Amino acid sequence: MNKTARARQKGQTPRVVWLTGLSGAGKSTLANAVERVLLAKGMHSYVLDGDSLRHGLNRDLGYGDADRAENIRRVGEVAKVMIDAGLIVLVALISPFRADRRRVRELFEPGEFIEVHVSTPLEVCEQRDPKGLYRRARAGEMADFTGISSPYEPPEAPQLELDTALLSVHDCIARILSLLELRGVAPPVAPAASLPADPQQLAHAREVRMPFADRRGRGDGY
Amino acid sequence: MNKTARARQKGQTPRVVWLTGLSGAGKSTLANAVERVLLAKGMHSYVLDGDSLRHGLNRDLGYGDADRAENIRRVGEVAKVMIDAGLIVLVALISPFRADRRRVRELFEPGEFIEVHVSTPLEVCEQRDPKGLYRRARAGEMADFTGISSPYEPPEAPQLELDTALLSVHDCIARILSLLELRGVAPPVAPAASLPADPQQLAHAREVRMPFADRRGRGDGY
Repeated sequence: MNKTARARQKGQTPRVVWLTGLSGAGKSTLANAVERVLLAKGMHSYVLDGDSLRHGLNRDLGYGDADRAENIRRVGEVAKVMIDAGLIVLVALISPFRADRRRVRELFEPGEFIEVHVSTPLEVCEQRDPKGLYRRARAGEMADFTGISSPYEPPEAPQLELDTALLSVHDCIARILSLLELRGVAPPVAPAASLPADPQQLAHAREVRMPFADRRGRGDGY
Repeated sequence: MNKTARARQKGQTPRVVWLTGLSGAGKSTLANAVERVLLAKGMHSYVLDGDSLRHGLNRDLGYGDADRAENIRRVGEVAKVMIDAGLIVLVALISPFRADRRRVRELFEPGEFIEVHVSTPLEVCEQRDPKGLYRRARAGEMADFTGISSPYEPPEAPQLELDTALLSVHDCIARILSLLELRGVAPPVAPAASLPADPQQLAHAREVRMPFADRRGRGDGY
């Protein structure tokens, strides 16, 4: 039993699509939208969301540099396990530092790790502020907040760059799917018409997605 | 998108089958054999092996009490993620302490977590000693070795107890499958005839399974 056998059963090539970007950039929205489209196409995928994992696997971690690095390392290792299970894994994680992302990439075989920079500008993210985190960060209530009091290091050579202030969710999904198609994962398909086509809907979609009644702590996954 | 949708796509009910028992008891052998049978039946499963995870997600952990508990916690959380992805998860992990196993069980919905005690006696495990760990433990080279210098707390009410000194692998697999069947996961099927039917083959099968060129450290997953 190996990755190839499990992937063959599912009729697909396992991949990790790693969405990195600021809080509020639209990472989770895009990841979940792509998962819905892939499901409709009969493909087997899963979203690893930094937020959710902060309530489970990574609940013991804080936001200092070492804990952040460990957070990203664990998400990478879980993605690797799920790739081994034959799945297409969509990761939504701020993952602000290049070194951490490079270490994760090294866990995977060449071509298996697809880095997508959700490059929505800080001003737009801050305006959306779906969880009120930027407001709190500006008020000095949150230390080490990416984009405000802690740097975000953009990828130097991402496979894809998506600015959700300029592109609709529909367009972003289509580009991610095209990239998967190029890499032999998924046949081409038009995204479902029911998906939000307006970037203004991003913040709303993020809110709807929230899976936890109790949103303690920062509630963002970096 | 939720667990139900992902499981429906795969035509199955997600479950975690948690195999607990001494080193050398046959946990990994059974988990891998069940996975092969489930694949042949078109079902989607995955083995979380304590050994393998010690080389990835849990590579930062040692063998002290706190690290052991954390090891088991993380495996439980990963199993939960994979259940959420709609998979049937087979966990092979010594997980010697009741309290740790109870905490893991609490992560899951009622009926989702199936505890299987691979109860092969210590004497048999020590005789098999596929990795030479018992020999090293007896020589005092390994502290806190379960069964020798650290206790194993058997489950008080496991869903299944399998002593591979008395039952063939074939029989063990059939019993696990029956349990899954009872719980509505899998239709009945005879295990593949090519599976080892002799408990004497267990140690050999364990050796064949070893996925790493470099087996540093203890090489067992508790």
